[in-house]
Amino acid sequence: MKLTVLGCYAATPRTFSNPTAQVLEIKNHIFLIDCAEGTQVQLRKSKIKFSKINHIFISHLHGDHFYGLIGLISTFMLLNRENDLHVYGPKGIKEIILLQLRASGSYTGYNLYFHELESTTSEILYEDEKVRVSTIPLHHRVYTNGFLFQEKNKERKLNIPAITELEIEPVYFRKIQYGGDITLEDGRVIPNADLTFDPAVARSYAYCSDTCYDERIVPLIHGVDLLYHESTFLENESHLAERTLHATAKQAASIAKQAEVHQLLLGHFSTRYGSTEPFKTEAESIFPQVWLAEDGKEFEIPQR
Amino acid sequence: MKLTVLGCYAATPRTFSNPTAQVLEIKNHIFLIDCAEGTQVQLRKSKIKFSKINHIFISHLHGDHFYGLIGLISTFMLLNRENDLHVYGPKGIKEIILLQLRASGSYTGYNLYFHELESTTSEILYEDEKVRVSTIPLHHRVYTNGFLFQEKNKERKLNIPAITELEIEPVYFRKIQYGGDITLEDGRVIPNADLTFDPAVARSYAYCSDTCYDERIVPLIHGVDLLYHESTFLENESHLAERTLHATAKQAASIAKQAEVHQLLLGHFSTRYGSTEPFKTEAESIFPQVWLAEDGKEFEIPQR
Repeated sequence: MKLTVLGCYAATPRTFSNPTAQVLEIKNHIFLIDCAEGTQVQLRKSKIKFSKINHIFISHLHGDHFYGLIGLISTFMLLNRENDLHVYGPKGIKEIILLQLRASGSYTGYNLYFHELESTTSEILYEDEKVRVSTIPLHHRVYTNGFLFQEKNKERKLNIPAITELEIEPVYFRKIQYGGDITLEDGRVIPNADLTFDPAVARSYAYCSDTCYDERIVPLIHGVDLLYHESTFLENESHLAERTLHATAKQAASIAKQAEVHQLLLGHFSTRYGSTEPFKTEAESIFPQVWLAEDGKEFEIPQR
Repeated sequence: MKLTVLGCYAATPRTFSNPTAQVLEIKNHIFLIDCAEGTQVQLRKSKIKFSKINHIFISHLHGDHFYGLIGLISTFMLLNRENDLHVYGPKGIKEIILLQLRASGSYTGYNLYFHELESTTSEILYEDEKVRVSTIPLHHRVYTNGFLFQEKNKERKLNIPAITELEIEPVYFRKIQYGGDITLEDGRVIPNADLTFDPAVARSYAYCSDTCYDERIVPLIHGVDLLYHESTFLENESHLAERTLHATAKQAASIAKQAEVHQLLLGHFSTRYGSTEPFKTEAESIFPQVWLAEDGKEFEIPQR
């Protein structure tokens, strides 16, 4: 499970800083989270295969989170994409994209599905055997959702020495991983507990940007392995955070602490700050495990 | 008069190549021509002041020519722009921009004027004492205009030695520059011809992208100092040019020759080519004065 930060600054693209986009690699999925102007180039720099992106999650319709989407959809077209593409985002996103495709006389050669969001309570957006993605309703100047990505580790771990000793054929492994007992040729029944260990703890990542300080999200993100929480400002400019419905580093850390998350990743920094180090220092006064987002940087989310 | 190429490649933004945008500095104006994704960053790299851009000309509604416009308009907003901004482009451009501003709950603090184009014959878009901008109707897959930028050199050049000898006060210089005769204190009338030289030849720049090979533009761009003509392909892929209504380097050179322009600048290169040098070689077989566009490169258009 790996997070690649493509851009982590607020407001506008600059020569050496990109607005928001992230890629989460989880259980063979490559999920794109937000897609500001310049995301295509950031994807190329990070050597992420365009064709592997099948799901794009857009938090809200401010430019620094989605102005790169129409360009990426067009590029997929030029690359002769065939896979379906699913875009999850606030109601209105479909009209914006389709209006621009129509104006250019273009039609995607692939199926483009929009999942428009309006709910103000958490809902599941995507689910398969191994992964679940749900919304984290956020409070910002426009309708906004964060996203919670959860592994689903249903498969028990095989006890290889025990299985080898009993000479069990590989064809039964899947049954064993899913909790089944095994009857040997001599009639003995081996209970699953003798053949497996408990599954690894399922990992989770919560993306919360943009948002003001809002304790209502705490139960939704409780105990996640990694929380990305925006911190546009430092605490000495909390009046700006309050006015623009953004958060400070201290506030992000307070949310992390209350939610008992394992690690906190700060981002969506205002470009007014020369260095992002003070964000770390400020947050660490409240919560110990703090990381700073950085364009192009990868964060492994290890198995616990 | 100076042209800065911000991006000169077709299709999609890549790590080391940008789609179309140019800046023309002419008589104290800074005109932005097309505005692909990434234009903001290219403007910053070229150290062009955002606040000096008051007129943006969009050729057509393909993404590689205007997907950066909404972001630039938003950035102007964040920079607290006050000057009026005029956007000239195909009908439909206003709806696309306003839909996105509405979705983000944003209003520009400055006046944003859209001049939507539908005409298929040349029309004047902007004119003042010193400059005229008019359309060059082009033939491409969607409604497209090129743009002709012309200096208007009405002012005659002062004959400083003659003026000094006659001790004429500076307050009369403007009258002399505009062709007036001068009556001295002793009653002598000095004809303008004795006080001035002919004005410099007015310079002109024609921007033609995207377009197929189309001789109908020849009279409109006749004798311009610099012609930018797209050359997406080389002649050995003319079948692609024909199918997509683009031009080859050879075709661009043929137009330059027929129009008796002074210099030809090639651009809008397909990213399929490793080097752009073959475009120059191909064009030079038809027309001698050929330049290759290059992201970030400046081209002076000298006084003749």
